Amino acid sequence: MNIEKMQRSSVKGLKPYDPGLLKNYRYKLDANENGYDVPAAAKKEILRRIAKIDFNRYPDPGCSALKELIAGKNGVKPSNIVMGNGSDEIIHYLIQAFTNTGDRVVIPDPTFEVYRILALANGAKPVMVPLDEKFDLDERAVLKASKGAKLIFIAYPNNPTGNCFSEDRIRRIIKGASCLVVLDEAYFQFSGRSFLPELRENKNLIILRTFSKAYSMAALRLGYLIADEKIATVINKVRLPYNINALSQAGAGVMMKLSTDRITGIILREKEMMYRLITETYPVVRSNANFLFIRVKDGKKAKKIFEKNGISIRIFTGGRLDNYIRLSIGTPQENRAALKILKRGV
Amino acid sequence: MNIEKMQRSSVKGLKPYDPGLLKNYRYKLDANENGYDVPAAAKKEILRRIAKIDFNRYPDPGCSALKELIAGKNGVKPSNIVMGNGSDEIIHYLIQAFTNTGDRVVIPDPTFEVYRILALANGAKPVMVPLDEKFDLDERAVLKASKGAKLIFIAYPNNPTGNCFSEDRIRRIIKGASCLVVLDEAYFQFSGRSFLPELRENKNLIILRTFSKAYSMAALRLGYLIADEKIATVINKVRLPYNINALSQAGAGVMMKLSTDRITGIILREKEMMYRLITETYPVVRSNANFLFIRVKDGKKAKKIFEKNGISIRIFTGGRLDNYIRLSIGTPQENRAALKILKRGV
Repeated sequence: MNIEKMQRSSVKGLKPYDPGLLKNYRYKLDANENGYDVPAAAKKEILRRIAKIDFNRYPDPGCSALKELIAGKNGVKPSNIVMGNGSDEIIHYLIQAFTNTGDRVVIPDPTFEVYRILALANGAKPVMVPLDEKFDLDERAVLKASKGAKLIFIAYPNNPTGNCFSEDRIRRIIKGASCLVVLDEAYFQFSGRSFLPELRENKNLIILRTFSKAYSMAALRLGYLIADEKIATVINKVRLPYNINALSQAGAGVMMKLSTDRITGIILREKEMMYRLITETYPVVRSNANFLFIRVKDGKKAKKIFEKNGISIRIFTGGRLDNYIRLSIGTPQENRAALKILKRGV
Repeated sequence: MNIEKMQRSSVKGLKPYDPGLLKNYRYKLDANENGYDVPAAAKKEILRRIAKIDFNRYPDPGCSALKELIAGKNGVKPSNIVMGNGSDEIIHYLIQAFTNTGDRVVIPDPTFEVYRILALANGAKPVMVPLDEKFDLDERAVLKASKGAKLIFIAYPNNPTGNCFSEDRIRRIIKGASCLVVLDEAYFQFSGRSFLPELRENKNLIILRTFSKAYSMAALRLGYLIADEKIATVINKVRLPYNINALSQAGAGVMMKLSTDRITGIILREKEMMYRLITETYPVVRSNANFLFIRVKDGKKAKKIFEKNGISIRIFTGGRLDNYIRLSIGTPQENRAALKILKRGV
């Protein structure tokens, strides 16, 4: 039996995704995580709630309590929300539910690489549209590529570049496209910008959110979409009924009652300081997120130097991304360690 | 924008999966859960480990520690294992990775309904093969249907009927089929039977296991496959990189070190007692799992009577399944409450 041959056609060219994580590090600045864990009091409360869960029972398949909280906070109905095992799973469901084999999915380039991988994994055709010279959206090219497409993915702010694309361009894309437009607002608590208020008048708009960044809960794997009820209904057709475990539901329920403002404030101040100091020596993209996209002299060499000093970072390769590094904004101690290396010259 | 029209063709006919759960019940005997939660000492240890997790960091994408434990216990290598967010996710990945649109997936009927739903949700064509009059596999019909198919799903023991299909028939299907054969051993700790020892000589064999049943961890959503490394590699291409949250990884790590024998022993003794008493009045399928499949006089009426008494059960409808109910074996108290209703006649 030839297993390679048996694979789905579009899967053949894929490789198992390797997040490229460093095994031994002192400081982890490679995954845009929050440098701060959830507050101690919240963790205690989460553990208290987890202790009460019947581990032997299936979780609430509808995530009712959690969706109520999210709906209340965002001024939508629970029926507008679908929870995912991380935003990754929501991205997957969108492609799974709305594309037939070969259908086009429009993806700016560079952006969060999971859009492209999951398009291929589901047999769709990713159509990559290069960002312009300022790493902003090429509105015309996106609209042109969207003809006959099923989905457009837009990260807002974008990852790895960190900037928010022009609001007007996004708005014209939403209005002008005859397909679904997914705005991935994973970092919106850092940018302070959201297209959520425009959901009501744009039935093709889908907002993605996550608990992995500002909420400090990457370990628990929780993301969600907010969209028209009809879109939510379609996703619920392909959604695994028990996709959100009971512990994460409980944890997010506790965190939803807290404000992330204090922590994001600290991170944003650190980011400003880092930006100011790094930009003295390196070209840095103006960031609306909790990370910086920096052009160094030699990306691969820079990664090695960082790693030798126990700091894990992400580098990018290929065309215009060569020699760019992406640095998460961590705690002051972590940031200073990274700064020290950058000051030496990499 | 017509959302209904935009859906993937094969998704149009689907409905959001409704596990049909009763909201208010005293006893939950509808989902083949373990009636017993994890032991108190284990829960304490799990909570102690969860307290140490950095919630702000992504989980180990490779589930390395957990896979080591599972591999050790099953005499395989970690590279033979892929962890899923419940077995549901593994079933999904198998269909996603190995079928192109319209490819056939062979599914005995009746069986675990998720196979069929996920085949459709992924654009594959489920080919339902009726079980014979004893609810055993129709070996010839399965082999015939498997011509040109990509996957055969076999639940062992079967759900909802509860019996293990004939070992010889399964063996001949594995040998005779030129596609992958998935043996879903979700309840194998109750049946005491497994095809795991035959994995080495059958490269097309895939074993599914879960933490949701004997291990009492349905709330944590953990399942896995054991198969040839090449199969695991293909699944890892479509797997969401962070599909298993850190809390469930920690929880399963604790439980893997315990034996489930004491609890499964209690449940099996209860089942024997229940079978003996129920079979005096009703036809009951000989069960190798932790549930009983019972033919009552009027299934819908029976469900109503059970629910009126605060007991949630599953009924089945359609052809030969009409008037069958499925009853999980719970704690002695739960079982006696169910027995009392059955004795009254339903």
